[in-house]
Parts: sequence; C-alpha cells; structure tokens
Amino acid sequence: MSAEQAAELIQDGMIVGMSGFTRAGEAKAVPLALAQRAHEKPFSITLMTGASLGNDLDAKLTEAKVLARRMPFQVDSTLRKAINAGEVMFIDQHLSETVELLRNKQLGKMDVAVIEACAITEEGGIVPTTSVGNSASYAILADKVIIELNLASPAGLEGLHDIYIPQMRPNRQPIPVVAPDSRIGTPYIPIDASKIAAIVITEGKDSPSNVLPADSETQAIADHLIRFFKEEIDAGRLTESLLPLQAGIGTMANAVMEGLIEGPFDRLTMYSEVLQDSTFDLLDSGKLTFASGSSITLSPKRNDQVMRELDKYRNRLILRPQELSNHPGIVRRLGIIAINTALEADIYGNVNSTHVCGTRMMNGIGGSGDFARNSQLSIFVTKSIAKGGDISSFVPFVSHVDHTEHDVDILVSEQGLADLRGLAPRERARVIIDNCVAPLYRPALNRYFAEACARGGHTPHCLEKALSWHQALNTEGNMRSLLAE
Amino acid sequence: MSAEQAAELIQDGMIVGMSGFTRAGEAKAVPLALAQRAHEKPFSITLMTGASLGNDLDAKLTEAKVLARRMPFQVDSTLRKAINAGEVMFIDQHLSETVELLRNKQLGKMDVAVIEACAITEEGGIVPTTSVGNSASYAILADKVIIELNLASPAGLEGLHDIYIPQMRPNRQPIPVVAPDSRIGTPYIPIDASKIAAIVITEGKDSPSNVLPADSETQAIADHLIRFFKEEIDAGRLTESLLPLQAGIGTMANAVMEGLIEGPFDRLTMYSEVLQDSTFDLLDSGKLTFASGSSITLSPKRNDQVMRELDKYRNRLILRPQELSNHPGIVRRLGIIAINTALEADIYGNVNSTHVCGTRMMNGIGGSGDFARNSQLSIFVTKSIAKGGDISSFVPFVSHVDHTEHDVDILVSEQGLADLRGLAPRERARVIIDNCVAPLYRPALNRYFAEACARGGHTPHCLEKALSWHQALNTEGNMRSLLAE
Ligand SMILES: CC(C)(COP(=O)(O)OP(=O)(O)OC[C@H]1O[C@@H](n2cnc3c(N)ncnc32)[C@H](O)[C@@H]1OP(=O)(O)O)[C@@H](O)C(=O)NCCC(=O)NCCS
Ligand SMILES: CC(C)(COP(=O)(O)OP(=O)(O)OC[C@H]1O[C@@H](n2cnc3c(N)ncnc32)[C@H](O)[C@@H]1OP(=O)(O)O)[C@@H](O)C(=O)NCCC(=O)NCCS
Repeated sequence: MSAEQAAELIQDGMIVGMSGFTRAGEAKAVPLALAQRAHEKPFSITLMTGASLGNDLDAKLTEAKVLARRMPFQVDSTLRKAINAGEVMFIDQHLSETVELLRNKQLGKMDVAVIEACAITEEGGIVPTTSVGNSASYAILADKVIIELNLASPAGLEGLHDIYIPQMRPNRQPIPVVAPDSRIGTPYIPIDASKIAAIVITEGKDSPSNVLPADSETQAIADHLIRFFKEEIDAGRLTESLLPLQAGIGTMANAVMEGLIEGPFDRLTMYSEVLQDSTFDLLDSGKLTFASGSSITLSPKRNDQVMRELDKYRNRLILRPQELSNHPGIVRRLGIIAINTALEADIYGNVNSTHVCGTRMMNGIGGSGDFARNSQLSIFVTKSIAKGGDISSFVPFVSHVDHTEHDVDILVSEQGLADLRGLAPRERARVIIDNCVAPLYRPALNRYFAEACARGGHTPHCLEKALSWHQALNTEGNMRSLLAE
Repeated sequence: MSAEQAAELIQDGMIVGMSGFTRAGEAKAVPLALAQRAHEKPFSITLMTGASLGNDLDAKLTEAKVLARRMPFQVDSTLRKAINAGEVMFIDQHLSETVELLRNKQLGKMDVAVIEACAITEEGGIVPTTSVGNSASYAILADKVIIELNLASPAGLEGLHDIYIPQMRPNRQPIPVVAPDSRIGTPYIPIDASKIAAIVITEGKDSPSNVLPADSETQAIADHLIRFFKEEIDAGRLTESLLPLQAGIGTMANAVMEGLIEGPFDRLTMYSEVLQDSTFDLLDSGKLTFASGSSITLSPKRNDQVMRELDKYRNRLILRPQELSNHPGIVRRLGIIAINTALEADIYGNVNSTHVCGTRMMNGIGGSGDFARNSQLSIFVTKSIAKGGDISSFVPFVSHVDHTEHDVDILVSEQGLADLRGLAPRERARVIIDNCVAPLYRPALNRYFAEACARGGHTPHCLEKALSWHQALNTEGNMRSLLAE
C-alpha cells in the first residue's frame, strides 16, 4: 500500500502511536504523508512516540498543524516553538510511564500504531529496526497497525531485540531482568496479524546523531568523574566493573563514557536508553562486555560500520522496550550509575533539566527521572556557565524542578565535583558553591547563601531574590547584574 | 543490663540506628539514658531511625543536644525548631532509600543499633514489636546491637513480621512480593547472636496516634475521592477491589479510608506504610481482606482492643521492613493507589509536602515520593486554605518541590477534584483552579495565570510574582494582600 493510502487510516481527532526513539527507527513515510495531506485538508491528532523523531518529522508535522497533542518527548526546534506558544499541548512524561498509562486506559484508546520494521514473521510478528521505544505496546494496544517495512535496514538487526510486555496489574509477576544481558522475551513484537491494516514499503535512513566532539569543559567534566570513580573503587564502594551504566544522550555523557576506555576499569556493562558512538568504542576496546538499550543512534561514519558489522556485536547487545530499559524496579534492582545532564541546578542540588527560565520547554524530562530516582548513584553534569558567561547554570533556586535534591547524589561541572551523599541542605550548598560554581558567579552565590542562612530554615532562602537571577536573564538577557550587587 | 550501662556503648561521634516508625516500636530506654547522660557530659551522634519516634524522644534528645545529624524523617516540634535553626543537620530521605544507602557504604558505617523486641529466638533472631521500619538492616549492618526487650508488648505480635533483605547489587534477584499478602522472609530478624552487646528489659508503651476525627473539609475531600473511585469503576478503569491502597499518615488519609467502608467496594487490600484505626475498621467491616504495612499506630482505645485481639487479625496482616513496604519496584508492580497529603500545590500540580514558605522543614518527605512516583494512581489531598484563610494552599509556584507534576495524577481539596491525567501544563492549571482552589483565592490565581499565559511558555509564569504569595505570608503573616490586586 502507498504511504498516502495507509495515512488515510489516520483521521482527525485520532490517537496515534509511532515508532521512534532518539532519532532512531521512526516510521518515515506515513508521517510525511500525513503532513502532506494536512496542508491540503487540515486535521489534527494526538501523537505518541517512543521519544524524539529524526528526519525533521516533528518539524514537518508541526508546520502542517497535524499535532494537537504530543507526548512523551521531543527535541525539535520547530515543535518546541509551537509548544511554548501554547499551540501544541505537550505532555512531558517519564519515558517508562507512557505505555503503562495507556495500558491502564488513562490516556484514552489508541486508534492506529505506525511501526517501522525490518521484517515481519510468518505469524505477523514485527521485527523493529534501530529502536524499540514504545513500539511493542503501541502495536499491541492499537486498534489497527500500519507497518513501514524498511528495505534499507540491515538484515543483522534481526535477533537484537528482546520484547517483553509486563502483565496487567495488580497481578503482575516480577520482570525477570537480573542483569544487562538478561533475555526474557521474543525477538519480535507478537501481534494478531489480523490487526495489520497496511504494509508500506520504505527505504529511508535514520538521521545521524548530532553529538559534538568534547570541548575542554566537557573533557574536564569527564575527567572529574573518572577520578571520582577511581576514588570510589579505592574506597571499596565500587569495583573495577563499576555498576551497570546509564548515560543520557548528548555530548557530555558521551565524553564521560569515552573516558572509561582509559583507566582501571574492566568488564563494564551498560543498562541505558540510547547506545551512542561511545558504547561501540567501549565495546571495541574490550572494556565493555554488554550493552542494553532501547535504541542505537550513531554518527554517520560509526553507523555505516556498526550496521555493516552487526554480527560482531550481536552477542553483546540488546534492544528493549523503553518501559524495560527505564523500568524503576529494574534500575533499582541492578543498582545503576546514572549520568544525566542538567540545564541548571540550585545551591541545594535541585535540578532543572527541561524549562529555560522556568517557562520555556527545551526537550522534556525523558528518561532522566526513571534513572536518577532509582539508581545507586545519581550523577548530574552541567557546564557551570552558558552563553559565554551570560548565564550561571548554578542559581539560588532552580526555576523549575525535575529532580529534587533527594535524587541528586553527585553534581559535576568543569570546575569540579560535589559529592552530596548524606549531606543536609546547608552542607550541600557549601559543597556545591565551592566545587561546581564558576568563579565569576561564586561571590554572588556566597552572598545569597549567607543572607539566606542569617534568616534561617532547613533550606534557607531569600524568597524575594530566589528567582531574581532568572528575572535578570529574562529582562536583561543575562545574569551579570547579579555580579555587581 | 541497665539502660545506662547499655547506653555507654554509644559514644561521641558514633552512627547509631534505632527502631521506631510513625511512633511505633521505638527503643524507649536507651535513648532516654543517652539524653540523661548528655545533660551531664555533652556528646553527640548521628541518629538514624525508621521514621518518627514516639514518647517525645526526639524532643528529649534534641534538648540534651545529642543529635548532631538526624535522618530520614521526624515529626517533633522541638527537633523541628533545631533543624530550622541549623543546629541539627537533618537529612530528609525517601524512606525506602536509607538502608540501601547504608548497605552501599554511602552513609558511613553504623556503630550501634538499638532495637525494640518482643522476643529473641534461640539463635539470636530478634522479633520486633509494633514496627519493623529499618530495624532489620540496622541490626544486620551495625557492629553492635542493643536489644530492648519490651515485656509489656503483646505476645500476639510474634508471627506478624516478614523480614526479607534484598541481596547486594548488582547481583540482586527480583524481590518476590507479588501481592500484599506475599510472605517471603522470616518472622524475625536473623543476626549473628555474638553481635548482641546488651539486652535491656523495658515495659514502656508506644505513644498513641494523634489522628483527629474528620472535620467537614476533611469529610468533603473523602467524599470527592470516593465519588471518583466509583466513576473509575463505572469507566472500567478500576474494579470494586480498586487496587492495593497506600494512605499517608494523618487525618485526611484516615478519613478517605473510612469512607471506603460504605459504597460499592469489596475485597480491598492495603500495601501501605502505617496501619491506622481506619485499617482495622475496614478489616472489621469485611471490606478489607489484607493489610501490609511497616507499623501499627492506633488511638488508645483501638490499640487496647487490637493488641488484645491480635489473633483475630493474624492472617490478614503483615509488617515489613520499610524498604519493602515502600519499594519502588513493588509499588510499580502492584499498581498501587497512593493517597498522600500536600502542604501546598501550584497551578501546574507540583506539590510541596515539606517546606513552609520554601525554607522551614515541617516533617520530611517520608514515603510519599516512593509511592507517588511509582503508583498506578497518585493522589494528593489538601485543604484549599490554611489558618482560617490567611494561606491559600494553591499558589502560582510552590515554594519547594517534593513531587513534580509528572507524579501527581489527581489533586483533591474540599472544593473538588482535579483529574490531571494526560493533560499539558496549561490544561492542568485550568482544571486545578476551577476545581480545587478556594473561591476566595480563585480570582487572584486566574489573574496570575492569564498574565502568565500572555507571556507564553510551556509552563507560563510571571517570575517576579511567582513567589510573591509566600513573600506576603512571610512579611505580612498572610496572603490576603494578593486578593486586592
Ligand atoms: C538538559 C539538556 C537540555 C542539555 O542539553 P545539552 O545539549 O547536553 O547541553 P548544552 O550545554 O549544549 O545546552 C543546550 C542549550 O541550552 C543552553 N543552556 C545551557 N544551560 C542553560 C541555562 N542554565 N539556562 C538557559 N539556557 C541554558 C545552552 O546555551 C544551549 O543553547 P543553544 O542550543 O542555543 O546553544 C538535555 O540534556 C536534555 O534535554 N535533558 C533532559 C532529558 C534527559 O536528561 N534525558 C536523559 C535520558 S536520555
Ligand atoms: C503535608 C503534611 C505536613 C500535612 O500534615 P497534616 O497534619 O495532615 O495537615 P494539616 O492540614 O493539619 O496541616 C498541618 C499544619 O500545616 C499548616 N499548613 C497547612 N497548609 C499550609 C500551607 N500551605 N502553608 C503553611 N502552612 C500550612 C496547617 O495550618 C497546620 O498548622 P498547625 O500545625 O499550626 O495547625 C503531612 O502530611 C506530611 O508531613 N507529609 C509528608 C510526609 C508524607 O507524605 N508521608 C506520607 C507517607 S507516610
């Protein structure tokens, strides 16, 4: 069937689920056909995906005004503008929760799922491509399924996936993942073949990752963290295998993972969301024995090599539904080391990962909450300043809270590392200001903290100044007026 | 051994763990002896408990300046003052996490554990009294153990407890709790008898609960929630057994639970922290088939009856370590309905449970985060106003975030119920203002929201006014100036 014909199954007001997670494995043809049609004949839908889409699909769907509601994550600048203008209702969710809510009928009934596949088994089982995301549950829960059979996808993908669907609650058995390499399901998504309403042949490619090479600040962050891991090994709190590692998407997490190639580490494992270039560098180095994720997103060169040589990695990789890769119970059970990026943090260690100046959505909370809350060691990294020093990423009071101080064990900037474990708020502030804050902004934060402490409280604040740094940024375009005070 | 002699095992600078959870089953003699000694010869310690202590022990230890550091929870007004003055370093923790951190050596080494017991088995196994809390892991991880053998505790307590200790990570097997009535461990705390350094005979009583009878607002909150449960049954999202229930401590949660006695509910279960009067009323009514908790805290009259007739309840009760009662993975697996109390909420549904005006600690986050994050349905209740209307419990921007909007499905005040599932921030604000806010403060919040929306953003705010309600409360003693604007 043509993409246009298949897209006719999707009508105004419907709830539609699509494959796609961190620019990997998204349905490519049907969304384009939808955008095309909407330009001629307007309609809108609720679109749920795994996470972000590649190939500018969110931009194209936004421009065509197809998106009335969008969840649970995005990273597109056009869609971001529409969200912040209040034009698209964006429901920012913990990535492990979306299908749980859908299964419990708390998000309505899914009409159509559109899933990219590299193969269909004889019984109608769908073999996903470079991501699993929420595809399995979307296909199972939707009334109708459209499959985009991507003929350009490497044959070697078959067998990498491990599809397991938790039972309905309250009668759910424990999910039997006990290590990153636990295989507990099937290598395909088992659905009733009669639900397959259309098969569309495609051959589009995933968008490459946009991770940048480490700059000197990013490298300094990685170095602080590598040193910390060594100290933890010396203190007997970690072994040379550390613990299963989760690393958020992006340049900083990638640089930290690269840093593990050198140093006294061995038999490392990953239990993460997205497998990036650094994952394969670590596998190639022999330091990493196994990597579990929900998607593979690589630079163009790495992608060509990995997809060609998948057999080389076959026994050391699993792709899981994001409900499993991010599952609170499994993250807690495995005792993960979680490394995620903060947009800003406050002096008490509360973290904002999503809202610029408390109001404008950047991307979404993604999986960071799933991991940070339940990990054995929750690490957040950020550069101490942004926009050449116009912005301090350490502020008196974060303008939005995604991760409360309870869920932040370690904060790292290029300035240094703050070990917050077992500390009370006043102690946390001291350690954060002394170790992480840029020298430029340190005196101003010290002044704020001293004045707040003089007023008292478990978590001292001067409420009338708590958000003044963000107010300055909003009105003056920078926080430099705070330096003068 | 006398309490004074046993207390000599505890010396300046030590890390000490004690039994006690929501005023139930705390060690009673040794803490008093410590306070006594410190009045004569000052010293201080780090004190970890399960949760709050009864018998004014936290007050007495604070007055004697025994507490240098205190975790993970408290409810005492004298200790609260010392915490807010910065005199006691209070580490407010998710109640499921304390022993996990201790086990991983992230909180130092525990020197001495002091555990109230109703019996000691021949092999040195400790049978706790009315709470389990963190007692099991404290006894296992401490260098030395002091047992307070309470001769006044009812014999019927033996057999109620189910002690299970999760394995060390990363090689942990799934914890096999699959229902509130799963028994997976031993009825006593298994420790090496050679570690028992002292046995002190006591006969003190637990403090009774201080839950008040429902007032008309509390009753209205309960009524809204019962109506909501009925609607969820009608919509096919819940059955008449609902889901395993967790109810926070306090008057409001108790009133909601009482409300379940009438109405179309049957074969209810609880998977909660503290079992209150309402739990036993529900058991007596036949509506509740099983209750799992970490402690029993009752009014004086109910306590006499329950402790006398424990045999009657024996097959329908389990007391577990708080690491299990609050375990993120188990809460997620069972699909719990979590009902907790907010101090204040903002128009987007972020909840503050701990900090008055963002600075002064009330009690602590307790188990609310363990449950709210991982439940199938996370409900927060609060009266719409406090102090006779001087305070609106719904504000533009909470002065402290304990639970982010992602973790709050339903908000209820005496005014009504806001169902926030699947809504974007701007939609959440509309539903919260219309349904939960007191009529007195509704126009002011509508003004704020309208002005914020005019400025834009995914989560619109006027930063310079966001905390003005709390500033007014701090400087003028009330929020009434906001009404005039
Ligand atoms: C937090 C997050 C936005 C950081 O992104 P990043 O690309 O690694 O970080 P950068 O330092 O490059 O910052 C991105 C932008 O924000 C700006 N920025 C950084 N700190 C800022 C601050 N405190 N205030 C305002 N803007 C800030 C940067 O200047 C940059 O702007 P630009 O795009 O105009 O150049 C990103 O990690 C994220 O979306 N996290 C949430 C989801 C998540 O954690 N997922 C992990 C599991 S996959
Ligand atoms: C939030 C919490 C403090 C509410 O306690 P509560 O006793 O049920 O609620 P009340 O309405 O009686 O309020 C308690 C006090 O706070 C005051 N208060 C209520 N809302 C307030 C607000 N928004 N701002 C300032 N003070 C407020 C009340 O006036 C009352 O003051 P008083 O003690 O001087 O009379 C309590 O539930 C708590 O500590 N929760 C956190 C731990 C938790 O949730 N555990 C659950 C798992 S056990």
